[in-house]
Amino acid sequence: MKTLTDIEGVFASGMHCGIKPEKPDLAFIYVPNAVASAAVFTKNNFVAPSITTNREAHQKATTQLVIVNSGNANAGTGKQGADAVSATVQKAAALTGLHPDSILIGSTGIIGTHLPMEKLTRGLDILLATPKAKNGTLAAQAILTTDLVPKSAFLEADVDGVTIQVAGIAKGSGMIAPNMATTLAFWATNVAITSADLQAQFLEAIDQSFNMISVDTDTSPNDMGVIMATGAVVLDSEGKKRVFRELLNEATLALALMIVKDGEGATKIIECQVTGAASVHEARKIAKLVIDSPLVKTAMHGEDPNWGRIVAAACKDPSLTIDPLQLELRIGGDETTLIFKNGEPVPTDRAKLKSSLMGDRIVITLALFRGSSTATAWGCDLTKRYIDINVSYS
Amino acid sequence: MKTLTDIEGVFASGMHCGIKPEKPDLAFIYVPNAVASAAVFTKNNFVAPSITTNREAHQKATTQLVIVNSGNANAGTGKQGADAVSATVQKAAALTGLHPDSILIGSTGIIGTHLPMEKLTRGLDILLATPKAKNGTLAAQAILTTDLVPKSAFLEADVDGVTIQVAGIAKGSGMIAPNMATTLAFWATNVAITSADLQAQFLEAIDQSFNMISVDTDTSPNDMGVIMATGAVVLDSEGKKRVFRELLNEATLALALMIVKDGEGATKIIECQVTGAASVHEARKIAKLVIDSPLVKTAMHGEDPNWGRIVAAACKDPSLTIDPLQLELRIGGDETTLIFKNGEPVPTDRAKLKSSLMGDRIVITLALFRGSSTATAWGCDLTKRYIDINVSYS
Repeated sequence: MKTLTDIEGVFASGMHCGIKPEKPDLAFIYVPNAVASAAVFTKNNFVAPSITTNREAHQKATTQLVIVNSGNANAGTGKQGADAVSATVQKAAALTGLHPDSILIGSTGIIGTHLPMEKLTRGLDILLATPKAKNGTLAAQAILTTDLVPKSAFLEADVDGVTIQVAGIAKGSGMIAPNMATTLAFWATNVAITSADLQAQFLEAIDQSFNMISVDTDTSPNDMGVIMATGAVVLDSEGKKRVFRELLNEATLALALMIVKDGEGATKIIECQVTGAASVHEARKIAKLVIDSPLVKTAMHGEDPNWGRIVAAACKDPSLTIDPLQLELRIGGDETTLIFKNGEPVPTDRAKLKSSLMGDRIVITLALFRGSSTATAWGCDLTKRYIDINVSYS
Repeated sequence: MKTLTDIEGVFASGMHCGIKPEKPDLAFIYVPNAVASAAVFTKNNFVAPSITTNREAHQKATTQLVIVNSGNANAGTGKQGADAVSATVQKAAALTGLHPDSILIGSTGIIGTHLPMEKLTRGLDILLATPKAKNGTLAAQAILTTDLVPKSAFLEADVDGVTIQVAGIAKGSGMIAPNMATTLAFWATNVAITSADLQAQFLEAIDQSFNMISVDTDTSPNDMGVIMATGAVVLDSEGKKRVFRELLNEATLALALMIVKDGEGATKIIECQVTGAASVHEARKIAKLVIDSPLVKTAMHGEDPNWGRIVAAACKDPSLTIDPLQLELRIGGDETTLIFKNGEPVPTDRAKLKSSLMGDRIVITLALFRGSSTATAWGCDLTKRYIDINVSYS
């Protein structure tokens, strides 16, 4: 399977430096000739010092290198935590010859514990000794926390005689409710584009993918997403521009869905499509209320078509004036069944309905008949495994 | 233990009419000489037809009788559901001679299933044959759903030669995140008061108790709270007024805490006290973000002092501009320990800290140093039992 480093001019690798007991825990992604970069960061008021440093650096320079550690979020760690970020940037700059502002730092794991800087520094010495490594798969593994599977997407399309490529890797699992940002996710592309255009298109892609997923409503202080462009393919036709935009949206959504699918303890993706909303804000909010409802999440885990919980969740915010008497609710898998309309249940074959929920993707559609705005959100079921994972994490 | 019906002039009872397989499922509370009443109803846009009817009736007349069924919420049931409410009111009016507007209906249980009206009507015939029954304990049982224990509070105090009494019963368990309303909860008092004054004081009491608890963030279409006053004790001194207000606040909070303690699957109450907020809105919102966080709820279940999750949850709403570098976080049981200050952990004895979380009440205090507003919210831990209860409810 192709990954990030199958794009020419994109390098990455990972290793075990000792932050975690045994799994890979340190990675880099390096685009030495990056012509543009774009980035999004957490909107939680509680931010890791790496995010504070990244925000400033990304304003000043195109990102060429991202260093990521897992097993420790280095958040809530005060001055010592900020010093650790600064030391990491300086070390990476010294080893690669890059300007410190072109280096970003990502961290994920336990909050409030100091980074073991000796291990991390020794790790960087080894890892950046071969900065042109082509091991994107190992990088994808080294950024994980409680994730069960690595998350990697690679898309390419031929257009007007050239091949446009977009690829990314991500970590997800818990504390996943990205808010105008993302979890840890890193993309590369081979196009030539300005950083301003890339930022606008990246924000659009993130807004319809990472910002519409939730595992547990908890937003991390360390969320970040970065994309770097190698500049190989000039977007000199409308066709190329369109294809790049489509690939970027698809690759972003693909990674977001991998995160939901591998949400802590999850066995099913729950997709809620809202149509006919009065505004995009309303559509997005209602879709999220449904996928975030613990009662909907548990019912879907039990493959129980307890649809009253869906209507109750969709309507629970009194600031949205939606009318349950007007809405139509459908649920199912690849095909959905109308089950609630005009304020009352539509007679259905319950056994058939129940069996339509047995797959690994449940679709809920809510037609509101108030306007023409739509949104889709993706969540996962709530299982005992989520509890097992989270009762003794620290 | 004293209950509702230990107030003179307050009658109540319950029975099994057949909506549930075997447990009590039909109750009434009757205050024939009620001089005042106050009520609050769900703010979910999805409302049961009983709530629609109640809202109108309560505008027109003082409530004297409440009929409550459990096992079926009669919500999302269209015209047939509205007809069922109307038939129930008419039946109760015929049996008691009361005006229909002085009768309210409460329903709780599965959404979207039609009420078995024959059973309910037959039940009312039996139940209201003795409207002056003094069996508040049975009424408290008959309004329950997945609750493990009945919830009843009785408070009285002597002041200026008279005894002021406030008592109530409630059901809770799941779909508990009352929003400017309550779950099903019914109170009586022996004071003489106007309905306008009672409504104002009742709203204040509800706002600091039922509106500050959450089991699972899901708000029910059937939430309602009602209080009826017998008029025996005239509040003709400042002392009596103050005592009534205190008893009302205490009784309301006592019932709210019983609901949290018996939240579906709960083993611990999580209390979050926010101080020094810039506004009451900010204090309330932050306290609720903490008690609603699945990661905080699971950590507290595991008695794991993973405090980073608390700070992340408290700060996750970007519309609140709180500064994690300014806040002080304490956690514990009866005594709390300072664990986060100036943006970094305060060295603590982890074993001692962990043992302070082993009781059935965990206290989290967040001092923000932004202003003088405070709020307290109460939630419960998230356990595998919550999942067991909710995977196959319908």
